[in-house]
Amino acid sequence: MKATVYHGTRDVRFETVADPVLRRPTDAIVRVTRAAICGSDLWFYRGIRPWTPGERTGHEFIGIVEAVGGEVRTLRAGDAVIAPFAISDGTCGFCKAGLQTSCLHGEAWGDDANGAQAQAVRVPLADGTLVRMADGMANEPRTLASALALCDVMGTGHHGVVMAGAHAGGDIAVIGDGAVGLCGVLSAAKVIGAERVFAVGHHPHRLDLARTFGATHTYNSHDAGVAAQIIEATGGGSAAVLEAVGNQESLDLALQIVRPGGTVMFVGVPATMERVDFRALFTNNVALRGGVAPVRAYIPSLMDHVMSGRIDPSPVFDLALPLDRVADGYAAMDERRAVKVILSAS
Amino acid sequence: MKATVYHGTRDVRFETVADPVLRRPTDAIVRVTRAAICGSDLWFYRGIRPWTPGERTGHEFIGIVEAVGGEVRTLRAGDAVIAPFAISDGTCGFCKAGLQTSCLHGEAWGDDANGAQAQAVRVPLADGTLVRMADGMANEPRTLASALALCDVMGTGHHGVVMAGAHAGGDIAVIGDGAVGLCGVLSAAKVIGAERVFAVGHHPHRLDLARTFGATHTYNSHDAGVAAQIIEATGGGSAAVLEAVGNQESLDLALQIVRPGGTVMFVGVPATMERVDFRALFTNNVALRGGVAPVRAYIPSLMDHVMSGRIDPSPVFDLALPLDRVADGYAAMDERRAVKVILSAS
Repeated sequence: MKATVYHGTRDVRFETVADPVLRRPTDAIVRVTRAAICGSDLWFYRGIRPWTPGERTGHEFIGIVEAVGGEVRTLRAGDAVIAPFAISDGTCGFCKAGLQTSCLHGEAWGDDANGAQAQAVRVPLADGTLVRMADGMANEPRTLASALALCDVMGTGHHGVVMAGAHAGGDIAVIGDGAVGLCGVLSAAKVIGAERVFAVGHHPHRLDLARTFGATHTYNSHDAGVAAQIIEATGGGSAAVLEAVGNQESLDLALQIVRPGGTVMFVGVPATMERVDFRALFTNNVALRGGVAPVRAYIPSLMDHVMSGRIDPSPVFDLALPLDRVADGYAAMDERRAVKVILSAS
Repeated sequence: MKATVYHGTRDVRFETVADPVLRRPTDAIVRVTRAAICGSDLWFYRGIRPWTPGERTGHEFIGIVEAVGGEVRTLRAGDAVIAPFAISDGTCGFCKAGLQTSCLHGEAWGDDANGAQAQAVRVPLADGTLVRMADGMANEPRTLASALALCDVMGTGHHGVVMAGAHAGGDIAVIGDGAVGLCGVLSAAKVIGAERVFAVGHHPHRLDLARTFGATHTYNSHDAGVAAQIIEATGGGSAAVLEAVGNQESLDLALQIVRPGGTVMFVGVPATMERVDFRALFTNNVALRGGVAPVRAYIPSLMDHVMSGRIDPSPVFDLALPLDRVADGYAAMDERRAVKVILSAS
């Protein structure tokens, strides 16, 4: 089969590799139908985060089960499945508590020659990890793209909104107009029922999409006085702030606009965060919360919301390419020509 | 009257100053019966935090109302009262939400020649700020000392425990065996009903007091492997961690022993905190929460617990001095000869 292999900075290639095989009785083999490129993939693509040449890439995919090991109980060949970006056993205390990203037996895609931007993937701990798609979800391009969004960005945005303390009738500010920030807006407006959603970004067309997703106020982060405007509009700051960029500037803005007693939640790899003003946390009773999203916990309910039509995250994919053009997809995201790329297996 | 005045590093003096007078119709004048020295007073006493020579000191006192302004509705001369360490109006949105330390009209003791380590104090916004003591509370030295503890340390420890997410039947770790840490232990064990309370300090007699207050496990922070021992004892870390020291070493320990998905709450002035491991917050879904305690919110219920005998924080005061020996009290706390000093007016 073919899979995406990292060769060096800004050099990924779709090339022939060994077919995956069942190694453990809890494994499944899944034929990939759609895969995605994540904003966090750009960290190694750009050479900011170490990645060893020869390693596979990708951690977001949906597909069809081709084979299962002898101990897999809940899946069988032919099932359409969604794979969250973290592998989890589904049985340990952390998994039962809904924190599958801290699973005692967790693994990561990309390890062990097992990336998701490939024609097929070996899925460890298949019963714990995979979620069978709702009936009919695989029949429509829109719901299929939404299923792919549930692998990471939709669940991550939703986790961020939940952990920031957003609630029905309340305010939330979302900093970042990438796919995660946009999905956070969608969750806040449509799932949580926040009354006012303040979205901050710097791409006009993405802020337009934020409006479509339910943002009630949008701000260009490059305009002077954004913090003062949000503080004014919220009467002293937003109790819930989702930081969905991952850099120092964005964290600083989040801490400026959070209401005393409120929460700043960051959900992306904190690649370039270095400082926090402890005295501001202290004086204002603010919580700074981080968290890689346990998207596995949210897939069932979010899938219901997709199928009922309450949410449609599929527009975050604004560039569709065949899987064998994965390298073009990375370049498009690196150059900000695309928010997020959906790759289709032929 | 006489009041404590800061003259320079390690130089406070009890000296004659002008008597306080009612300036605004919402003021009260309170004759001080007991005042305390706070661990945070040591920051300026030691020259670490700027303090201008000539400024008054002290922010913890109880006393008897001597006079009230024309707009004071809930108090009258002769009332025994408890003063929280923050002045608040009791009517703004933050006060109504129980976050009186973010009061829109809040002030601090010490400002405007109005320190609490004095024979009398002018209390701004008296209706919002002061709490009338329960009947009989002023009759016993033990309950009177407990009332003084409600000005700051008992409410601060309790706030820390609540905001760390401690709950009945759960675990909490408390780092620091000063008065706030000890009060946190007391709150966790007796008010919240935590099942296991892990107390970390480095003074054997204070850890003994922690045991008396309800700690189920105690650790000397100078022993190697404290973090590993607590992680082992809790099966992966404590979901709730109260950091009650305020330095980098203590914060680092807190982040080591917090369970994935848990909260580290710090309640003291973060005088020497400089760094936080953002990636650890992210990977483990940990909340770092800061917060100067809105003790005003907790005084009524904690006062009930004192009067019912459920809690007795008075042993945190291990040195009693007359008010005119306030300078000796500072020296005793500076030299760690006392956990906390209670000063009695003659």
